[in-house]
Amino acid sequence: MQNFEYYNRTKIIFGRGTEKAVGRETAAYLKGQDLRILLHHSGGHAVKSGLLDTIKDSLKKAGVAWVELSGVKPNPRLSRVYEGIELCKKENLKFILAVGGGSVIDSAKAIALGACYDGDVWDFYARKKTPAAALPLGVVLTIPAAGSESSISSVITDERGPWKQGVNTECIRPVFSILNPELSYSLPPYQTACGIADMLAHIMERYFTKEPHVDLTDELCEGAMRAIIRNARRIFSGGGEDYNARAEIMWAGSLAHNNLLSTGRIGDWASHGIEHELSALYDIAHGAGLAIIFPAWITYNIKEDTPRLARFAAEVWGVDGAFYDPKQAALEGVFRMKNFFRSIGLPVSFADAKIPADRIPEMARRAVRFGPQGNYRSLNAGDVEAIYRIVAEEK
Amino acid sequence: MQNFEYYNRTKIIFGRGTEKAVGRETAAYLKGQDLRILLHHSGGHAVKSGLLDTIKDSLKKAGVAWVELSGVKPNPRLSRVYEGIELCKKENLKFILAVGGGSVIDSAKAIALGACYDGDVWDFYARKKTPAAALPLGVVLTIPAAGSESSISSVITDERGPWKQGVNTECIRPVFSILNPELSYSLPPYQTACGIADMLAHIMERYFTKEPHVDLTDELCEGAMRAIIRNARRIFSGGGEDYNARAEIMWAGSLAHNNLLSTGRIGDWASHGIEHELSALYDIAHGAGLAIIFPAWITYNIKEDTPRLARFAAEVWGVDGAFYDPKQAALEGVFRMKNFFRSIGLPVSFADAKIPADRIPEMARRAVRFGPQGNYRSLNAGDVEAIYRIVAEEK
Repeated sequence: MQNFEYYNRTKIIFGRGTEKAVGRETAAYLKGQDLRILLHHSGGHAVKSGLLDTIKDSLKKAGVAWVELSGVKPNPRLSRVYEGIELCKKENLKFILAVGGGSVIDSAKAIALGACYDGDVWDFYARKKTPAAALPLGVVLTIPAAGSESSISSVITDERGPWKQGVNTECIRPVFSILNPELSYSLPPYQTACGIADMLAHIMERYFTKEPHVDLTDELCEGAMRAIIRNARRIFSGGGEDYNARAEIMWAGSLAHNNLLSTGRIGDWASHGIEHELSALYDIAHGAGLAIIFPAWITYNIKEDTPRLARFAAEVWGVDGAFYDPKQAALEGVFRMKNFFRSIGLPVSFADAKIPADRIPEMARRAVRFGPQGNYRSLNAGDVEAIYRIVAEEK
Repeated sequence: MQNFEYYNRTKIIFGRGTEKAVGRETAAYLKGQDLRILLHHSGGHAVKSGLLDTIKDSLKKAGVAWVELSGVKPNPRLSRVYEGIELCKKENLKFILAVGGGSVIDSAKAIALGACYDGDVWDFYARKKTPAAALPLGVVLTIPAAGSESSISSVITDERGPWKQGVNTECIRPVFSILNPELSYSLPPYQTACGIADMLAHIMERYFTKEPHVDLTDELCEGAMRAIIRNARRIFSGGGEDYNARAEIMWAGSLAHNNLLSTGRIGDWASHGIEHELSALYDIAHGAGLAIIFPAWITYNIKEDTPRLARFAAEVWGVDGAFYDPKQAALEGVFRMKNFFRSIGLPVSFADAKIPADRIPEMARRAVRFGPQGNYRSLNAGDVEAIYRIVAEEK
């Protein structure tokens, strides 16, 4: 097991009706300070569903005033981030409340960084500068997926490239996050499914490690993945308004990405890098891109160190441990994973997602522009290209 | 799943050599404040092993001065706590560093509470008052067991009763905890075993709940218990200086009691209450007392709602799910648990621990003095007495 530091200061407020606590939590955090905040959201479902009214009510009752910035899109754009930064600076706002899913939260995190920085916030995403400070932010989560509600990550798309880049820094970890599973009832099934693929991918990225001595976290990863798969099936087979299944999925999405599951190990993360090129160029949902890439990533890697891939198949996908041989077991695991993704309506090939195969070499070059992808397996442009080819040839 | 709040602000610094970071962490936390602290320890192994010298070196280099209070015993005493409170008040110390296991940390927590209170600190333990504030404390852990290094709990013995009582309050959660598994190499095997029973018990108390919809945390609890059992066997069969096994056990001990595993559920906690009477009257180690009580608690409860007890047997102790019937499977689980405890040198009966059976009715009355014990099963004095009788009759 490798040395590690683990620190997660996000206060989670979880359960039915908890969005009504947002005013109280915000005012408590800002105690003694100016109670004026940036309220950041997509302007879509949160408005129509009445959630935003509930939140404004709660803020008003707690004496919190806000300036609103809406219109965040999936794969959140840098241009909106710039607007938010300007707004915070002009209005001297010292706190951001993000109401939405990963896109809104990641956009809020970028604004939080930019508001405390004199240069271009893209410097942090382009790896030219390391962030030193950010405004504090709170979250009301509506989409269980990215885990951004208690993570140190933010991923933004600079539409001028387009480049999709992430930054990881402790200073953007939300100070509180409110998680009410009921808010996810009204998600379209496709978005629910994309969220499920995203959280599974967050755990898989951590699970695939070179570190052999991570017994406890292996158990936690495998257990969390089984719980996600089981409750996803429950949502898709039994109807979307199953509170307990929604709750398991929502809490799992947070735990998948709050770094507990990577303690003592270094994860892989190549699939995320390989996927980012898909969503940068074709603007598909990140979760859908991961459902396409991850099975191919495993298939490509089966040639080496198969035991961990076979264990994954056995413990997570229920493949009999004695199944033929480790390689065959690992392949059977991939087969079941793809079946699962398809069963909840996700694409597992370029054809499924209507992605053309004509820019594969370009995507592969872009994916390795900062160096090889992956820690469990180091992949160069040729490897990445081969992985794209696997999904391009998939029927 | 029940609504919950989850917040754990303890910064964990984990791994080889990490005790050398204690000066840096303390100075960073006290930034801008008076760098004088109370250094609290048992005066035993930490001194002999040279650990305390390493810590003093690190503090000195970081410009931190200390006042020392040693002599903490297992089942830490209120009299030593009073000394510490007086010392903090007299010397105007604003931070406590605990170097040791659960006893030292729990003693430090009591001092931290008392130093911020004008009355008798025992008021909090006797449930007469609710704590409002405590001094911040840091930890260098030497014994993986109680999980006190990132918990909100402190258990103290008032030797005048004797009464053994606990308090739970967010304000005593350590601000940082340093965990170096190497520091546990030199523990006597019996102490290692007691720690293992203690952390298993912390998970079992959470695992046994009336809440049916806790799928994710059930998976996490079961996985953590399997990892503890497996790595305990590795330590006892393969020698004590197995870094990775020691590391799994040390990290598991923290996760067992940092409340992650109780999110969305209310645990039982009767066995802890029933055990406290054993260690209050006979001064046996808490972990040993739990190894005696827990199997009897399960045996007593098998008559009702056996499915959860059978699942525990299947998932944690490897009992075939199809074993006879649920009751028989649960009993087989108890049989394996007792075997496991005995295999690592722990008592599982009054006879093993040389505890006489003559004060059973008195212990049972004492155990329920604040009301019935347990949330999963509510136990009155008669039930508690029956559980003591099971272990008294055990050969």
